[in-house]
Amino acid sequence: MAVRALAFDVFGTLVDWRSGVAEAFRASGVPGVSEELADEWRARYRPILAEVNSGVRPWANFDELHLATLGDLLRERGLDLPLAQRHRLVGAWHRLDPWPDVRSGLEALRRLHVTAALSNGHVALLVDLARHGDLRFDCVLSAELMRAYKPAPVVYQTAAVLLGVECAELMLVASHPWDLEGARVAGLRTALLNRPLEYGPGAPARADPDADECVGHLGELAERLALAA
Amino acid sequence: MAVRALAFDVFGTLVDWRSGVAEAFRASGVPGVSEELADEWRARYRPILAEVNSGVRPWANFDELHLATLGDLLRERGLDLPLAQRHRLVGAWHRLDPWPDVRSGLEALRRLHVTAALSNGHVALLVDLARHGDLRFDCVLSAELMRAYKPAPVVYQTAAVLLGVECAELMLVASHPWDLEGARVAGLRTALLNRPLEYGPGAPARADPDADECVGHLGELAERLALAA
Repeated sequence: MAVRALAFDVFGTLVDWRSGVAEAFRASGVPGVSEELADEWRARYRPILAEVNSGVRPWANFDELHLATLGDLLRERGLDLPLAQRHRLVGAWHRLDPWPDVRSGLEALRRLHVTAALSNGHVALLVDLARHGDLRFDCVLSAELMRAYKPAPVVYQTAAVLLGVECAELMLVASHPWDLEGARVAGLRTALLNRPLEYGPGAPARADPDADECVGHLGELAERLALAA
Repeated sequence: MAVRALAFDVFGTLVDWRSGVAEAFRASGVPGVSEELADEWRARYRPILAEVNSGVRPWANFDELHLATLGDLLRERGLDLPLAQRHRLVGAWHRLDPWPDVRSGLEALRRLHVTAALSNGHVALLVDLARHGDLRFDCVLSAELMRAYKPAPVVYQTAAVLLGVECAELMLVASHPWDLEGARVAGLRTALLNRPLEYGPGAPARADPDADECVGHLGELAERLALAA
């Protein structure tokens, strides 16, 4: 089956959360290395999503989860911060810059296929990021619509239903092998987009031998898919 | 409360369904005046949505409802048509041209506020229309996400939740007073966009004394909202 639509993971794949969140920590005056704080905050992301998916924690969106994990992070470091400052840090996730290839890459891919964001971030957060980075999608889909987080199969499968395509006609583009694996379990095609700087310089390159495509930037993916079409 | 986001009805408000559907009838060879056929097909729209909202008919998307109402229309006229041709007519609703002010008007409004489609059409249909007309929204919201059709209050209220705004901060832009009234019942602000040609030349102008704004094209709405900001 030919690819008819592309779904894009957002955090890490399209936008550089680490630089933006570290910058917000620097501005906040929280003591510590800002990049380390950003990494520690982000490391609390998958465990708390698993709590929601397993039913241990009631449904909550990214703003609410970020506020909770920030509280845990500060407590562990013996730090405190007024609520207004915590909200400012949570708000930093709404104003992250895209990687340099994203704006033009999305345009090139949108000429080939239907393009949709498919993120665990909630719709309002994705809208803010798209506006901040001037990113154009055909539509914005979110785990919020399914009230389950990736890698739950229902997220990927419902995205295909909403886009009016078969799962095998939808390709997830992401920089995280766990997300691509979740998509494959749900029957989607997958493309690994390498983001070697996502966790800062010196992080090991990622590989996903099961991905249909493995590329270094969105323009490369557009070339590959144009050849396949 | 200031307006922070705009939700746009699509069929009639942004795209000219009558010309496109009449053209498809002409190409189909169905006997009769094509514009009359288009009007009769469209007239079956609100009754069948009411059947879904009342629970008499199970949830079905616009493609499925259009196929059902086309069958009724043909039967009433004593006509028959092979299924492939019926599907071609249903597909015409995916390729309707926008009114001339829409592309630039949406851009101007998107510079002021968050913009979302909010249509009874399903997501895949709205994506096709946006791509066909090169219309840019910040996101595409649909009654499909709520599994209830406008004017059910849940559709408007869930749109506000998804956009992260209060109902009173969200303005529905539509050419149909019944839709605007539904939005007001749900607590939204409203703008009547007059489309005097929606039902062909000579149709009476619409008025809505309860609307916050009453305009003739999207550029006019952008001017009004820029003054209010």
